[in-house]
Amino acid sequence: MKRYHKEDYPLEQIRQHLEPGPIVLVSSAWNDEINIMTMGWHMMMEFTPALFGCVISNANHSFELIRMSGECVINVPTLDMADVVVGIGNCTGGEIDKFEKFGLTKTPADIVSAPLIAECYASFECRLYDGSQIPKYNLFIWDVVKAHVAPTPKHPKTIHYKGEGEFRVAGETLNLRKKFRPEIL
Amino acid sequence: MKRYHKEDYPLEQIRQHLEPGPIVLVSSAWNDEINIMTMGWHMMMEFTPALFGCVISNANHSFELIRMSGECVINVPTLDMADVVVGIGNCTGGEIDKFEKFGLTKTPADIVSAPLIAECYASFECRLYDGSQIPKYNLFIWDVVKAHVAPTPKHPKTIHYKGEGEFRVAGETLNLRKKFRPEIL
Repeated sequence: MKRYHKEDYPLEQIRQHLEPGPIVLVSSAWNDEINIMTMGWHMMMEFTPALFGCVISNANHSFELIRMSGECVINVPTLDMADVVVGIGNCTGGEIDKFEKFGLTKTPADIVSAPLIAECYASFECRLYDGSQIPKYNLFIWDVVKAHVAPTPKHPKTIHYKGEGEFRVAGETLNLRKKFRPEIL
Repeated sequence: MKRYHKEDYPLEQIRQHLEPGPIVLVSSAWNDEINIMTMGWHMMMEFTPALFGCVISNANHSFELIRMSGECVINVPTLDMADVVVGIGNCTGGEIDKFEKFGLTKTPADIVSAPLIAECYASFECRLYDGSQIPKYNLFIWDVVKAHVAPTPKHPKTIHYKGEGEFRVAGETLNLRKKFRPEIL
């Protein structure tokens, strides 16, 4: 797997990588333990502050690490990592070190304790903004405090989980910019 | 645009159409007014009941129709409707009838007052499950009470909004079922 050189990226533009709905890898750290999980239930919630919501089942080993630290990193993988994404979703960090098992590389984050995943082209550092809906829905509302995105590829082949073991791969890019009112672009 | 013959669809399977993150058209009805809006900030929240969360800006004309009725229909459009999707997002239902303007066909829903859009291959009838986060986040938590999906196409070309007038089109399907533990499929 390729490792990406990511650059600082404007927070108000992160929707470009999250709104299309890719499966993501969530890295977390707490008490010297580090873990990764796959996650597909997420959405943008606000531009500024850059709020991002996601549902993380409390059946995941990562749940406690994320809840106790109040931090995580959302990493966006691409097609070349599909087997790793599935592998990570099918084992538990209670038993193994997933970075080691899947040959992934930790890069230190700037603000949070959880590491970025070097093999993902985009990584978003998150701090818990509102945990009030965790007890009822396992819903975490995050403030994305730092964004790192590789300048290329321009149109990454993200993978989008459907359930039942199937993904759709992001295909062609459609530019309909001319049909938009400038003020809503 | 093609009109689809949709069939009843199991609620516990709706993630197949929503989790990949397509742009959707939200239809609503209140006090003899009917409207449609485009929406990209959404996620699955639970299998059973089939909970679905979305953020609907209160700047939208639809916001009040949806909030007052406590109902909506989430319709999933495909590539052939891209111009209509953008058109709907760039005008306001306060001034025009969007069904008429964009040549869309209303189909009565089974449970809610808002109509299904016949030109969308999938439609999900929603009743408000929890409106407690609307004031703070414009976050609606829906109980999907009825699902309608056309048996074909099997791999619909959904479109996924990135911002800046650009979409990614759902491309190839990747089946990694054999790499999953059976209990999490």
